[in-house]
Amino acid sequence: MNIVLDAFGGDNAPISVIKGCLLALDNYRDIKIILSGNKDMLEKIAKENNLSLSRFEICNAKDIIDVEDNPMEICKSKILSSMAVGMNLLKKGDGDAFVSAGSTGALAVGSSLLVGRIKGVKRAALAPVMPSAKGCFMLLDAGANLECRPEMLLQFAIMGSIYSNKVLGVKNPKIGLANVGAESSKGTEAHKQAYILLKQCNYINFIGNVEARDIPFGACDVVVSDGLSGNMILKTMEGTSNFFVKTLRDMYMQTNATKIAAALMSKQNRKLKKRMDYTEYGGAVFMGISQPIIKAHGNSDANAFKNAIRQARECIKQGVIDEISKNIGSSVGDE
Amino acid sequence: MNIVLDAFGGDNAPISVIKGCLLALDNYRDIKIILSGNKDMLEKIAKENNLSLSRFEICNAKDIIDVEDNPMEICKSKILSSMAVGMNLLKKGDGDAFVSAGSTGALAVGSSLLVGRIKGVKRAALAPVMPSAKGCFMLLDAGANLECRPEMLLQFAIMGSIYSNKVLGVKNPKIGLANVGAESSKGTEAHKQAYILLKQCNYINFIGNVEARDIPFGACDVVVSDGLSGNMILKTMEGTSNFFVKTLRDMYMQTNATKIAAALMSKQNRKLKKRMDYTEYGGAVFMGISQPIIKAHGNSDANAFKNAIRQARECIKQGVIDEISKNIGSSVGDE
Repeated sequence: MNIVLDAFGGDNAPISVIKGCLLALDNYRDIKIILSGNKDMLEKIAKENNLSLSRFEICNAKDIIDVEDNPMEICKSKILSSMAVGMNLLKKGDGDAFVSAGSTGALAVGSSLLVGRIKGVKRAALAPVMPSAKGCFMLLDAGANLECRPEMLLQFAIMGSIYSNKVLGVKNPKIGLANVGAESSKGTEAHKQAYILLKQCNYINFIGNVEARDIPFGACDVVVSDGLSGNMILKTMEGTSNFFVKTLRDMYMQTNATKIAAALMSKQNRKLKKRMDYTEYGGAVFMGISQPIIKAHGNSDANAFKNAIRQARECIKQGVIDEISKNIGSSVGDE
Repeated sequence: MNIVLDAFGGDNAPISVIKGCLLALDNYRDIKIILSGNKDMLEKIAKENNLSLSRFEICNAKDIIDVEDNPMEICKSKILSSMAVGMNLLKKGDGDAFVSAGSTGALAVGSSLLVGRIKGVKRAALAPVMPSAKGCFMLLDAGANLECRPEMLLQFAIMGSIYSNKVLGVKNPKIGLANVGAESSKGTEAHKQAYILLKQCNYINFIGNVEARDIPFGACDVVVSDGLSGNMILKTMEGTSNFFVKTLRDMYMQTNATKIAAALMSKQNRKLKKRMDYTEYGGAVFMGISQPIIKAHGNSDANAFKNAIRQARECIKQGVIDEISKNIGSSVGDE
């Protein structure tokens, strides 16, 4: 299988991209990696950093799309960017999955317009895999579609269920609808209608509404939400986690006694850090696109890129797209 | 000033309510407390627990409204509940502020229908005060109005700014609009229009959009949001904080070495606990109601009730309602 990497996406590109790809090649013998990006620059930077590019195929792309660029430009003035060129490799059949740590907005537009959605899927959802007390859960949508119709939420539930089962190995994944209260009467009109649709769907194991306060404790395996709610959940969890990690670190540094405490807790601290590390589970998947597209975190290091590549490989190996394709069409009527 | 307490609201009522009121009376000599609730039951429980009711006025209310009750019942079958009777004391002029740890939904309905909004206020917002790295911030709306028009968000900003300044003592409070990204072009149509209204308003210090990940770090003093986003922010922060506190406690219990670490960190742990204790700042205020109504947390203990009473007292002393009244009318045209 050919996994395409956006060599110039993310804060630490291209060095971390190259290092992550080398790690992945060492770990997974069944993959081939294509780097999309400016060939001259790649070769120059690789040489300066003593990195070999000999194990990669390089697909030249003279431009870079920036987080400041209007996402729509990926189809216009930035069609020769490393991101657009990489995505077009999927369209042409030269690539089987795409990983980028670049602009989320541009990736969303490119996913839908350059690669295209699975037939029958109304909207693609941005779906990060996040840590919880019971392991991890998938959240979709985390911001690609701020307002969602109930049928879209049903499709998100089906797609999330398939991912959770096939890639994360969860048997009969529990699906929850993020809402302001547990009762079926809670929320907006869209929530109430979605509740009914989810309840009626035999394909999924719908456990009802979940309140945001129960999500970090692992209330369900898949959290379904409109993109606005999902974005708030994702970023509040991230911010609050970062706040705690920083506070704990400050606490440890305060006195000689607390410094000793830090040493006594070093094993536990490492475990906590690993457990809260979002990149351990890979990046966010654009669920509903006809080939696996993974958005790695903007500040991904080599290990994060390796994990995102592992995730792309799992999506391919487990036939996630085919499974969605088979089960999404019959879920709801056409628009 | 007369502060009315719902004696039968919350998980630990009426014992914690009584204890909290006694604490408040010890601390604030300028308040009088009226307990609303079943007089016979109150006297019986007080006697059983060796608590004196001699310092309170009691207003008899034979019924209790439950969290399972439809909130609208507060104006119908539950008009004789401790909550409804207490709110009616405000309407009649016998009370100056109301504190309850009962059903949020019933309190929202009762606030608007029994007590009434300030003239010119389109909707009342549920506004908790929450801890951040820089102290605390007010979030409004946290769930009373799931979908909000831009003019409502502008009014929330003005009311939050007044509370932050008058009660929390913040000079020129920084107002942020909770959104999926920092740029003015981000979010739904309502977000974009609200951004323009907030920018144009001279009364407030609008610093632009804030992303949820920056809120725990104290990005602003007042977070303005629709009730759906706000509910997700509030409960995700609460859940993630609880998760961390639990995890840290588990970490400390693992080995003899970590137990020693816990002892070495005891002062810091206490400080962290106090800092993350939501009830230290009081409860959530129904901003926009013509008298101060405070929603205390459902599991409030005596200290939490004391803090909510302090908060009600501050609202009265600082003339928060008058200040809103003076400044809200001219903010936007009538509906």
